[in-house]
Amino acid sequence: MKPVEIKTAPPEVRVIFDDIMASRKVNDVNNFWKYLANEPRMLKHTWESLKSIMGAGALDPMVKELIYVAVSVTNNCDYCMASHTAAARAKGATEAQINELYAVVALANMTNRLANAYKVPVDEQFKPRD
Amino acid sequence: MKPVEIKTAPPEVRVIFDDIMASRKVNDVNNFWKYLANEPRMLKHTWESLKSIMGAGALDPMVKELIYVAVSVTNNCDYCMASHTAAARAKGATEAQINELYAVVALANMTNRLANAYKVPVDEQFKPRD
Amino acid sequence: MKPVEIKTAPPEVRVIFDDIMASRKVNDVNNFWKYLANEPRMLKHTWESLKSIMGAGALDPMVKELIYVAVSVTNNCDYCMASHTAAARAKGATEAQINELYAVVALANMTNRLANAYKVPVDEQFKPRD
Amino acid sequence: MKPVEIKTAPPEVRVIFDDIMASRKVNDVNNFWKYLANEPRMLKHTWESLKSIMGAGALDPMVKELIYVAVSVTNNCDYCMASHTAAARAKGATEAQINELYAVVALANMTNRLANAYKVPVDEQFKPRD
Amino acid sequence: MKPVEIKTAPPEVRVIFDDIMASRKVNDVNNFWKYLANEPRMLKHTWESLKSIMGAGALDPMVKELIYVAVSVTNNCDYCMASHTAAARAKGATEAQINELYAVVALANMTNRLANAYKVPVDEQFKPRD
Amino acid sequence: MKPVEIKTAPPEVRVIFDDIMASRKVNDVNNFWKYLANEPRMLKHTWESLKSIMGAGALDPMVKELIYVAVSVTNNCDYCMASHTAAARAKGATEAQINELYAVVALANMTNRLANAYKVPVDEQFKPRD
Repeated sequence: MKPVEIKTAPPEVRVIFDDIMASRKVNDVNNFWKYLANEPRMLKHTWESLKSIMGAGALDPMVKELIYVAVSVTNNCDYCMASHTAAARAKGATEAQINELYAVVALANMTNRLANAYKVPVDEQFKPRD
Repeated sequence: MKPVEIKTAPPEVRVIFDDIMASRKVNDVNNFWKYLANEPRMLKHTWESLKSIMGAGALDPMVKELIYVAVSVTNNCDYCMASHTAAARAKGATEAQINELYAVVALANMTNRLANAYKVPVDEQFKPRD
Repeated sequence: MKPVEIKTAPPEVRVIFDDIMASRKVNDVNNFWKYLANEPRMLKHTWESLKSIMGAGALDPMVKELIYVAVSVTNNCDYCMASHTAAARAKGATEAQINELYAVVALANMTNRLANAYKVPVDEQFKPRD
Repeated sequence: MKPVEIKTAPPEVRVIFDDIMASRKVNDVNNFWKYLANEPRMLKHTWESLKSIMGAGALDPMVKELIYVAVSVTNNCDYCMASHTAAARAKGATEAQINELYAVVALANMTNRLANAYKVPVDEQFKPRD
Repeated sequence: MKPVEIKTAPPEVRVIFDDIMASRKVNDVNNFWKYLANEPRMLKHTWESLKSIMGAGALDPMVKELIYVAVSVTNNCDYCMASHTAAARAKGATEAQINELYAVVALANMTNRLANAYKVPVDEQFKPRD
Repeated sequence: MKPVEIKTAPPEVRVIFDDIMASRKVNDVNNFWKYLANEPRMLKHTWESLKSIMGAGALDPMVKELIYVAVSVTNNCDYCMASHTAAARAKGATEAQINELYAVVALANMTNRLANAYKVPVDEQFKPRD
């Protein structure tokens, strides 16, 4: 699949590209959006979802980028690690925070498997209550 | 495998159990530690790693619990979701924050696969520089 | 590990290579088979399984290639994405179908994690009945 | 987290529930939507994405349900396996097709790891061309 | 899907069930085979593959059961953890060995993510040579 | 992130690097440790855990390297596959053993998904007993 470039994008793609550039105050869109534009419906839904969830909300936007990186490291997605680590840094994440993030992600992947292996039953105090 | 109970724990396990209870100011240890105590070396290393990384540091302790939940949801580890969601709440996470966390985790798992599928090349601005 | 080439393949490998070439009406075998030939027993079992399941059957062969791509995207296997996307195209899959496939795979990876996170109980109507 | 029931749903949730029921010509919504309603923004985006992608399009709707099952089996998501297998059956999937689907998913998970292990290079004929 | 019972199995299933019982010197087959019998071709291929690979070979059969458990813990497959841990014990694995196995699996899942996160380049001495 | 070189390492990193070199009787440390040194606490914990678990113990050290490879292949971690396959060979693993390992890993990934798909109930004889 080839990327869809801004200049030659069909109208339903162009309107999303324009919204991405306006929202982010930039003059170009990342490769992710150019490739995803091969499926204009998914381009629209993915952009609208991210625009809605990743901005101002209950969690700090920088924290949400760190969470994005945590999932991407667990799944080993190179593109997503690169783009969301850059976004976290742009929103203020320090090198010490990124290093600590990696440590937490690694430990969680470790203890997830220990809990699987030992089939640890959930403690009473962690269970939902009515 | 059966859990190792506090009263009958061998000395190398008991010293870790005591440190967990003292550090957390509680009178019992969670099931996770009781099962992991079947491998006392791993009990020691896991506890020391978590004690070192999950407390005060570069990131807020509540944020680190949210990151732990993000990995556990991605890997579908029931025990770890239950215990670290409880820990996040105990450290102040609101329901709105946990709901937003779940949304971010879900979107990251989605866009990870879109980036895989389209084999999106990393943008120049995301690449490390010398 | 190095690939096993057709000309120098031992007899138990050569017989499988010959069957692959005869079944597919081609003069060469893909790299996958040449590397797997380092373990001739697994070469035989893998080829026999794929030959049996991926051809004519209950599902359309092109649909089975799309399912193969769906799993490979979820697991991020570059080789398998490349080879089975090519196979799907050879069996008639259009660009619109492949783009829609990617969208479905991405959405499934997203809602899988939402179902995990909320621990959604299975609805009565989805449960097996006697 | 508790499910949001139809009768007590806030307006931004109710409008989505109503659209789900109208689109599917049913009188209730599945547990998935009731739990996801704890995050109304994500409820809206997820429903709109699924409504757009899973209906009429380039691929047969039944095939898209099978692809959904393939991802859910790979990720071991019980809820999603149950709901999308039911949806596939409702759209005409036979038992023979579902059994064959499982076989394809299993084989893909197997050969994904063989390709990883042997680090099989992508054949020239599978590479994208300009 | 319901299991296929020995007494009512169709001939192509019965011949495999008989071979499993004869090879293992038992009077019944495990649930895994009874369910997989819904897809007789896959039953045959899976049994023949396991019979060929899991018995006498280059690696000790008990070691192969431990490797099976390692993968099943990583993927969180309850059935496979239960059946292959039982098989490992039957072939002589001690509790100390199983506990140590779990530790290795957990550490590997941890360092896999550290290597991902830091994008560690492969050392020259680990690269294949001509 | 850049690697931390031995000559310019801060004292808390240098002490770990020295212990790695002394324990392994080598004059350099692998890239993994140089990158992980960006988070000195995690460097220390990871090294101490691996030193404790991967050496002499209940399982043969070569077997533990094979288990490490099994997890790394399942998770598709290139660095870990390269380094632990090299370690397995250094500890005596033959090509036949590595090929058989790959076969077992692939089969386990396959049957894990078959067990998921059919939701196979655990046989009574595999359940833990009091």
